[in-house]
Amino acid sequence: MARIVMKFGGTSVGDCERIKNVARRVKAEVDRGNEVAVVVSAMSGVTNQLVDYCKQIAPLHDAREYDTVVATGEQVTIGLLAMALQEIGVTARSWMGWQIPIRTDGAHGKARIESIDTTELERRMAEGEVAVVAGFQGVGPGNRVATLGRGGSDTSAVAIAAAVKADRCDIYTDVDGVYTTDPRIVAKAKKLDKITYEEMLELASLGAKVLQTRSVEMAMKYRVRVQVLSSFVDAPGTLVCDEDEIVEKELVSGIAYSRDEAKITLVRVADRPGVAASIFGPLTDANVNVDMIVQNVSEDGKHTDMTFTLAKSDLDRAIKVLNEKKDELHYERLVPDSNVVKISVIGMGMRSHAGVAQKMFKTLAEKSINIQVISTSEIKVSVLIAEEYTELALRALHTAYGLDTH
Amino acid sequence: MARIVMKFGGTSVGDCERIKNVARRVKAEVDRGNEVAVVVSAMSGVTNQLVDYCKQIAPLHDAREYDTVVATGEQVTIGLLAMALQEIGVTARSWMGWQIPIRTDGAHGKARIESIDTTELERRMAEGEVAVVAGFQGVGPGNRVATLGRGGSDTSAVAIAAAVKADRCDIYTDVDGVYTTDPRIVAKAKKLDKITYEEMLELASLGAKVLQTRSVEMAMKYRVRVQVLSSFVDAPGTLVCDEDEIVEKELVSGIAYSRDEAKITLVRVADRPGVAASIFGPLTDANVNVDMIVQNVSEDGKHTDMTFTLAKSDLDRAIKVLNEKKDELHYERLVPDSNVVKISVIGMGMRSHAGVAQKMFKTLAEKSINIQVISTSEIKVSVLIAEEYTELALRALHTAYGLDTH
Repeated sequence: MARIVMKFGGTSVGDCERIKNVARRVKAEVDRGNEVAVVVSAMSGVTNQLVDYCKQIAPLHDAREYDTVVATGEQVTIGLLAMALQEIGVTARSWMGWQIPIRTDGAHGKARIESIDTTELERRMAEGEVAVVAGFQGVGPGNRVATLGRGGSDTSAVAIAAAVKADRCDIYTDVDGVYTTDPRIVAKAKKLDKITYEEMLELASLGAKVLQTRSVEMAMKYRVRVQVLSSFVDAPGTLVCDEDEIVEKELVSGIAYSRDEAKITLVRVADRPGVAASIFGPLTDANVNVDMIVQNVSEDGKHTDMTFTLAKSDLDRAIKVLNEKKDELHYERLVPDSNVVKISVIGMGMRSHAGVAQKMFKTLAEKSINIQVISTSEIKVSVLIAEEYTELALRALHTAYGLDTH
Repeated sequence: MARIVMKFGGTSVGDCERIKNVARRVKAEVDRGNEVAVVVSAMSGVTNQLVDYCKQIAPLHDAREYDTVVATGEQVTIGLLAMALQEIGVTARSWMGWQIPIRTDGAHGKARIESIDTTELERRMAEGEVAVVAGFQGVGPGNRVATLGRGGSDTSAVAIAAAVKADRCDIYTDVDGVYTTDPRIVAKAKKLDKITYEEMLELASLGAKVLQTRSVEMAMKYRVRVQVLSSFVDAPGTLVCDEDEIVEKELVSGIAYSRDEAKITLVRVADRPGVAASIFGPLTDANVNVDMIVQNVSEDGKHTDMTFTLAKSDLDRAIKVLNEKKDELHYERLVPDSNVVKISVIGMGMRSHAGVAQKMFKTLAEKSINIQVISTSEIKVSVLIAEEYTELALRALHTAYGLDTH
């Protein structure tokens, strides 16, 4: 007997037939003798409709009232799924955030979970009752409904799994696992059986949209074993787990890419102490998140070029801020570029093996792909290249690191 | 300064524009210096959609889960209305049943309110904050959401008004008040300025669908002054109040009709003690509610005809039950008739004035309308006639009792 938390997203509960299908999957887990809690999202499309109502009523609305409105989506799903389970003979009960309670801070719309009281939940699970829990929501200060932000249901599932000390948290989604890279681009991409928290975190934050970054952080913190698998195909997925659980370690586990990148170069900035602070200070104030930064070696000892990357959606705002500060910053020209892509090679093996970065640079050079910016961390190497080379670079690197399926 | 509870039904909050319109009406009340609580229903169509989901999932569903699902409709409206109020500068906060709390019994789907803790609500109203309360819902045993049954928002509004000792409970709807009879049938019907609780109760239970019967019962019990008025027209409506508040009392206040009636005659039933019990016992067991009963005078001292009325929707069930008991009941024939209408004349004045019933019989006789069954109470006379005479009878009676507008 194991204790399992299962999580189903919006597509998996998109209509009543699909909810019945989810109920059958949950029943199968119960029939195996497991104790089960299920976390569900709103039926697909519902949250968008609710958000649209809020925008129609008031463009700048009170976050507490927004949460009251959008939290209803998950409430509908838990009631329907509990009914569907009972209909096929499974004892089940629905739970909203305030009923458990899942306590959050007061950051409505993007609240963080502070505590979960699982006393009643665990008592009932031990008696064989399936707990059907609304994802994405908790209860904040003053007994107000609070939501965790878009995609927060993954985080809810991992948090519940941590709180009830589940043996596994199964995240059912529309893909059947985590791949070495995007299979829509690289046909030879292969599904990973296992991946470490650290690698998954890099993948998630680098654009692989399988799991929400916060949920992976939480899984890593509380050592929750998370399985990503398909709600439509009956097959094992990818287990996100501790390094110790992985016997066959690959040097490189995956290659991620993100097209949501832009680059700004400030030409001939004064090369003096404090210049970086005077550039990035105003950007931080304007809520622009800068990622990679390169400062060229000064040729004349007085001027240098400064290049950095940021989210494409922040580009216009950043240009506006830097134009306003032009007199102060004394740069000659500002050169924006949004036709770029960030390619990242990720692997725990990098920590102990030299040459991973070198192989990346060599492979790209062989395809005559120019690297614009480089950034490295303990377990990843990222490069910025022209967007048009995305597919070419991904395929070449996938082969070079020996990840292709046979 | 007065304390006012305002209630808006599904049509009044049917879309975002209408919700903004409701916000303006609430603001007008606040600007007059009043303390205000608003009770709202789900946006029109939403509850039906949610009920439909439940039916798709399981024809016989758990009432607690049904309540979890359908209560979301009102939750959406309170959040949106609170936003709309804030947007036009009115301090407001939304309240679900469990947040107040409004405690109910455990009869999920048709729960009764047991208590309302208005401490926080009253404190905030006194500070000028508008309380936007979800109608139709409360919280039952075990912290489970409970709903009051269809149309329960009227009851919520009156209960809140009673609990906060409101000076008035304004029920905004799609008609502009209570009329002497249905204006779609009798063009000369006039709007009443005031009507007593007792008369309104008779009208509501006799088919005038302006207010839910339970809400009128509650208003009468706690002496809540209820005003029925239009959410689309800016004019005073009809005040439902204590008899003492009405100076000019009419002999007859209104004429109601109900087409939801059917009649059954059992021909040649044995005329002996206990026969009524043996007929109506099985009907009660089958949940058939019998309304008017007539037993003919026996001609031979051994047999009689028994006629009674019931809801049209119960007719098939009643026939089935009586057919099964035929041998036991010894009747000769069963004659059903669903082409009947019940017409009722209602007025507090009846208690002290004779001749109201007599005038009804005389007026119908003059139009050659045959009366099939008669039933009277302290403040009403009801007759059953053939359905085809509905309009003729209503107009004739309306004129006869001097109710026509000039």
